[in-house]
Amino acid sequence: MRDCHRELTRWAEPLGAKVRVDAVGNWRAVYPAEKPSRPRLLMGSHLDTVPNAGAFDGVLGVLLAVSLLEALQGRRFPFGIEVLGFSEEEGVRFGTPFLGSRALIGRLDKELLCRRDANGISLRQAIADFGLNPDDIPQAELKDDILGYVEFHIEQGPVLEKMGWPLAAVKSIAGQSRMEFTFAGRANHAGTTPMNLRYDALAAAAEWITGVERHAQEVPGLVATVGRIEAKPGATNVIAGEVRMSLDVRHSADEGRDRAVDYWIWQAEEIAQRRGLSVSRQVLLSQPAVAMDSFLVGQIEAAIRQTGCEANPMISGAGHDAMILAEKVPSAMIFLRSPGGISHDPAESVEVEDVAGAIDCGLHLLDQLASSSAFQQRTRRA
Amino acid sequence: MRDCHRELTRWAEPLGAKVRVDAVGNWRAVYPAEKPSRPRLLMGSHLDTVPNAGAFDGVLGVLLAVSLLEALQGRRFPFGIEVLGFSEEEGVRFGTPFLGSRALIGRLDKELLCRRDANGISLRQAIADFGLNPDDIPQAELKDDILGYVEFHIEQGPVLEKMGWPLAAVKSIAGQSRMEFTFAGRANHAGTTPMNLRYDALAAAAEWITGVERHAQEVPGLVATVGRIEAKPGATNVIAGEVRMSLDVRHSADEGRDRAVDYWIWQAEEIAQRRGLSVSRQVLLSQPAVAMDSFLVGQIEAAIRQTGCEANPMISGAGHDAMILAEKVPSAMIFLRSPGGISHDPAESVEVEDVAGAIDCGLHLLDQLASSSAFQQRTRRA
Repeated sequence: MRDCHRELTRWAEPLGAKVRVDAVGNWRAVYPAEKPSRPRLLMGSHLDTVPNAGAFDGVLGVLLAVSLLEALQGRRFPFGIEVLGFSEEEGVRFGTPFLGSRALIGRLDKELLCRRDANGISLRQAIADFGLNPDDIPQAELKDDILGYVEFHIEQGPVLEKMGWPLAAVKSIAGQSRMEFTFAGRANHAGTTPMNLRYDALAAAAEWITGVERHAQEVPGLVATVGRIEAKPGATNVIAGEVRMSLDVRHSADEGRDRAVDYWIWQAEEIAQRRGLSVSRQVLLSQPAVAMDSFLVGQIEAAIRQTGCEANPMISGAGHDAMILAEKVPSAMIFLRSPGGISHDPAESVEVEDVAGAIDCGLHLLDQLASSSAFQQRTRRA
Repeated sequence: MRDCHRELTRWAEPLGAKVRVDAVGNWRAVYPAEKPSRPRLLMGSHLDTVPNAGAFDGVLGVLLAVSLLEALQGRRFPFGIEVLGFSEEEGVRFGTPFLGSRALIGRLDKELLCRRDANGISLRQAIADFGLNPDDIPQAELKDDILGYVEFHIEQGPVLEKMGWPLAAVKSIAGQSRMEFTFAGRANHAGTTPMNLRYDALAAAAEWITGVERHAQEVPGLVATVGRIEAKPGATNVIAGEVRMSLDVRHSADEGRDRAVDYWIWQAEEIAQRRGLSVSRQVLLSQPAVAMDSFLVGQIEAAIRQTGCEANPMISGAGHDAMILAEKVPSAMIFLRSPGGISHDPAESVEVEDVAGAIDCGLHLLDQLASSSAFQQRTRRA
């Protein structure tokens, strides 16, 4: 991450941007307005990604924002532009996503700072180990001088490709729940324990996972994933005594998501009771669906049309930093088509022409916003 | 393991035993016969165990053999007694069990020595890292001067407790298959990939695990276990692209075991094909059922009766070093009752009176064998 920050800084500073890394590890570059003390438009995305990932999820949005500064060739606007490279959006290490963007809206609290990774290292400690001071996190918070947040991101799904659109404005982001379920049975010898005397946590987990998949297939618009599993003790010749799993649930309607989660909790309890096991659960995230700012969505659609393409807004199935910032700042997103709909995989990619189109769209958007007095009066101060 | 060897040596040497550690890491203590150059009876068990195990699986059999030497109070027999503390019986690190006992019958070949652990370290390298020379392994092999092998071990199952017997002779050991199955699908974003466009390796694995359990419940005497599972990339918000699992299958009849394995291979292929995934498999062990030496079984039953208990032979569902040695040496086992049938778990235990009974039984057995000329003429040399 330090190398990544250094490369970005080496690119942004000659463009006239002032760079810092805030106390939660967000890379932040401020490109000044025509006059001092003017409010800022935020642009960017996240710099982290998942294990065995591709090269575009997150980082492309940061690079596009810096590319826009470069494409301005020194032009300034009535507002400043702050490019953000968020830290830890995916939540891989601490189980909770959006750590970087949470800090900007004052939602990185003490409880989160005490959360520990798989090696028992707390978030607070990890921040200190990186050379930052966790006590300075409140200073990362946004003040009242922010006009909005615009995030470029690959779609990470098959919709744009299927429709033949290179870009789309995002009108809302589906809500998501992330949970951890643990079945506890009894570890025992795989050779000497008859089938009817077993309390096999992995057999229980397998039954539940098939139930999660079946129900998600039945409910329109619902997606659910068990992507992480750990069986203990984890030996070939030992019946698993404990199995811990993640559950990720998304739906554009919060009620549909809550209903599905309740069903799977009930199902886990039913399976555990029938098999003589116990089951426990922990909610790691319960994020409601978030609408994007309708003014910005409209401006993005106009900018996409300026590039010569059709503009149709869509719903994002993935969570993004924009859904966090939207709590305090008018926010919107621009999706780029994902070839094959593939993401979170080394095969993740993007078309070069679509990236060029995104820069073109971004320049149109900045010009539109620069000539909109309505936009420039939209700070929280106003 | 080094500490364990040191403790055993500190106990065995004052009893007159000559100790060495062979090139595969087996601890070996030879208690001399009345006269030099006489054949030896082997006794012992293994010193390794599984992760999160109890205190008795394996090591109790080694301690009982040393305790017998102690209980002899210097008495010698027409045969020597070699106590064996086998290394790596469980197969946790390299996926293949019985590494220590294989070396004694010349079955630790080059292919096995090249097998690698989860960190990519080969068995050959691990042996060298422990300070032993893998090229000396052929010297660990047994010669023709061995009369037999007797192994004490906890039952690790519920049978003896249910019947109220403290000890039992083992008349045969069930065969076992150990395999690894890998489902390969496609990693993708958990939020943006509709349920009907997924190639979810963990959902496929879960369906297969429930099938393994169901079929094992249907076939009398069959036990099957999936105890180890690894999902990649293993993140909450990523559909699993690859899942690797162990399968452990046991049955007293080799044909019943083979038939079950074939069924689960077919089932894995059917699941993979229907879901658009691929599945591969690897056989790590295919160990036929092994009969124990009938002469030694009879002698053990007589010795158990000498302790005042009923003697009924039983089948072992667990694999043991005795099944490996049986290929070249007349072998037999004595089971001690397992409270609650619990094993491979910290709650694994044994009754103190049963251990005392086992020593008593062992002394009777040694006296019987010492007075049996038929036994002493049973070397492979003869």
